[in-house]
Amino acid sequence: MLYITRKERFNAAHKLFRQEWSDEKNMEVFGKCSNPNWHGHNYDLYVTVKGKINRETGFVIDLKFLSKLIKEMVIDKLDHKNVNLDVDFMAGRMASTEVLAETIWQQLEAPIRSQGCQLHSIKLYETENNYVEYFGDENH
Amino acid sequence: MLYITRKERFNAAHKLFRQEWSDEKNMEVFGKCSNPNWHGHNYDLYVTVKGKINRETGFVIDLKFLSKLIKEMVIDKLDHKNVNLDVDFMAGRMASTEVLAETIWQQLEAPIRSQGCQLHSIKLYETENNYVEYFGDENH
Amino acid sequence: MLYITRKERFNAAHKLFRQEWSDEKNMEVFGKCSNPNWHGHNYDLYVTVKGKINRETGFVIDLKFLSKLIKEMVIDKLDHKNVNLDVDFMAGRMASTEVLAETIWQQLEAPIRSQGCQLHSIKLYETENNYVEYFGDENH
Amino acid sequence: MLYITRKERFNAAHKLFRQEWSDEKNMEVFGKCSNPNWHGHNYDLYVTVKGKINRETGFVIDLKFLSKLIKEMVIDKLDHKNVNLDVDFMAGRMASTEVLAETIWQQLEAPIRSQGCQLHSIKLYETENNYVEYFGDENH
Amino acid sequence: MLYITRKERFNAAHKLFRQEWSDEKNMEVFGKCSNPNWHGHNYDLYVTVKGKINRETGFVIDLKFLSKLIKEMVIDKLDHKNVNLDVDFMAGRMASTEVLAETIWQQLEAPIRSQGCQLHSIKLYETENNYVEYFGDENH
Amino acid sequence: MLYITRKERFNAAHKLFRQEWSDEKNMEVFGKCSNPNWHGHNYDLYVTVKGKINRETGFVIDLKFLSKLIKEMVIDKLDHKNVNLDVDFMAGRMASTEVLAETIWQQLEAPIRSQGCQLHSIKLYETENNYVEYFGDENH
Repeated sequence: MLYITRKERFNAAHKLFRQEWSDEKNMEVFGKCSNPNWHGHNYDLYVTVKGKINRETGFVIDLKFLSKLIKEMVIDKLDHKNVNLDVDFMAGRMASTEVLAETIWQQLEAPIRSQGCQLHSIKLYETENNYVEYFGDENH
Repeated sequence: MLYITRKERFNAAHKLFRQEWSDEKNMEVFGKCSNPNWHGHNYDLYVTVKGKINRETGFVIDLKFLSKLIKEMVIDKLDHKNVNLDVDFMAGRMASTEVLAETIWQQLEAPIRSQGCQLHSIKLYETENNYVEYFGDENH
Repeated sequence: MLYITRKERFNAAHKLFRQEWSDEKNMEVFGKCSNPNWHGHNYDLYVTVKGKINRETGFVIDLKFLSKLIKEMVIDKLDHKNVNLDVDFMAGRMASTEVLAETIWQQLEAPIRSQGCQLHSIKLYETENNYVEYFGDENH
Repeated sequence: MLYITRKERFNAAHKLFRQEWSDEKNMEVFGKCSNPNWHGHNYDLYVTVKGKINRETGFVIDLKFLSKLIKEMVIDKLDHKNVNLDVDFMAGRMASTEVLAETIWQQLEAPIRSQGCQLHSIKLYETENNYVEYFGDENH
Repeated sequence: MLYITRKERFNAAHKLFRQEWSDEKNMEVFGKCSNPNWHGHNYDLYVTVKGKINRETGFVIDLKFLSKLIKEMVIDKLDHKNVNLDVDFMAGRMASTEVLAETIWQQLEAPIRSQGCQLHSIKLYETENNYVEYFGDENH
Repeated sequence: MLYITRKERFNAAHKLFRQEWSDEKNMEVFGKCSNPNWHGHNYDLYVTVKGKINRETGFVIDLKFLSKLIKEMVIDKLDHKNVNLDVDFMAGRMASTEVLAETIWQQLEAPIRSQGCQLHSIKLYETENNYVEYFGDENH
């Protein structure tokens, strides 16, 4: 088994808040991340796929296919968007990096499986100091 | 003369658009940067100061002072904010990286001069692929 | 389960040596790292915490809490210090990156557990070319 | 158990192609990576070793030894070389990053085991956007 | 005046050698860079343009235009190519980073001038340890 | 004219203090950098040389020569050393990054001039957030 990773990027606005909470409660829990007028990030996304090497091509998965898939299913929906307002698969969810990683997994898991590989992990950097990793519900 | 640089960071939302233009014209000129619901970036800011070495301290300028000054005059006003809506010194201006660099210069030039040094340049990264530099109107 | 990582930094002096060995033996085993007058590094520390997403906040652990905890328990004791001479939790131990990672784990494991999460790993870079990872004694 | 990683680098030319295929078929499967006149990369190699801390030295493995071993067994054979034409251990294999990682593992596994440690993983970056990881056939 | 920089990348093979010299002389002058079977690099290219801010758009130059121009005039001709064999504007020249920077300047200077801006510099990284900068023949 | 830069690294201990001042005064002026037991850094050094391209080699200066020169004149004297105690060319000087850059210039200026080139600048990073640049006394 070999693991191969593709890095992609998107720039997006978001805020952390709960509609049903007061601004004060949102500020208490989420701090400056709850700014009502939004803030934003350059997100770095690492998608890791696990599989066997095809001895004819030397590939686990065609990286051109993987990059195209990530762009269509994830980047085009998030890049230069507002995570809270513009992204169908984030509707009704907290726009935290944690939830975003989990939701990106759900976007990519099936199409990668259809190539005879497994999605192994989603690693998502919000800043150079904070990142999350999700391995699916069964792996860990 | 010696040049010393301090790097600081801020995360902010913005959009590029002109109120008096249609959404179509904004999209034509600014592309996806004109998304009405905003997007955002992790900005990296480099402030370069030019001066003589003080032989008693070995310093051109006290970096603790410089870092505190940048935080008070620039970072606290931009970090986790919306550049178009929340920032007093950007009111009525295009929220482009170019204009932002020029405006940050205006925030810092006088207080640095009051320390017996010169502000040499503002370098501002919007993404790892795009950055601008401003050296003031007289230097270049 | 989701993994979230916070990066912090500290700058410290250290040397690798054993008091009971001669300078020659120390040089033979530890090379230039045994310089009696010390040398130093910019250390990068990555603390990874494992837990479930709280559906109300979207958080595994509050990163403001985690960052504050790491600063109080680790960074304040190591930053701009001498690892061999100034750090209570390193007293009597080899000041290697390996031992430092293990000891930082011991500083952080209980307070993170008290938040309903698990400390998953300590990753410590000494230089861009060398880093260690410790996952506790039971995990691996 | 503790994991320690050493990063080394090499710059090499390669192409992805199968001699028995037409140029068109090679282009279809491998795209621009099949350019008959070669292209090249700055490869970053991370070798991770797993072991117990020696309480006398604070080391899992002597990094000077590990670095020397990687240089002799891997870097000297790949740096400023053509992966397809110049490298004995790649003869007759596809010059993909995946196969290269697997083959570098085979070069290093036994000499690291002879030091009382285990080779844990080979991580190989082809570009900042693509990397592979190999953990051996038994580990995963 | 404001300076704006766009970063692009290309991966290419090359070698340093003179046909009329023996392999021994080439090795003596160019070292391992003269390997007859080529080697390669991930090149990072920074193109800096100097101009006035357009007050309507906040731009010095449209970065989408600049990126497209660099791709057409430079990247498409160099990426996944052999600098010595495949690149029209390098024919008959030494494939050194120095000469490459100078030649990339010649590709970009006129089309950038036609936009009412000036090309200020070409900065080209061959590895993380080596880069060159060219400012044209008149500037410096 | 073309500018070529070589990056080298050294890891060293230092402190900022004046013997004739009290510990309190040193703390007031230099803060935690005055810790009597030292602290340290991974320094990144960029040496930029300016010259004409030799049309036979494509070189401004032989980078193997430049790297060897920097290692002999600078890195070997600073790496794994104490800047205040171990370095001949820093004796009696403040061990600040500013003074260090100026002194490294003095080490390298003459031998680079003897190659028919000019030393253009010394850029020295103390941390990822702080760096200084020195261009000699006549250039700026």
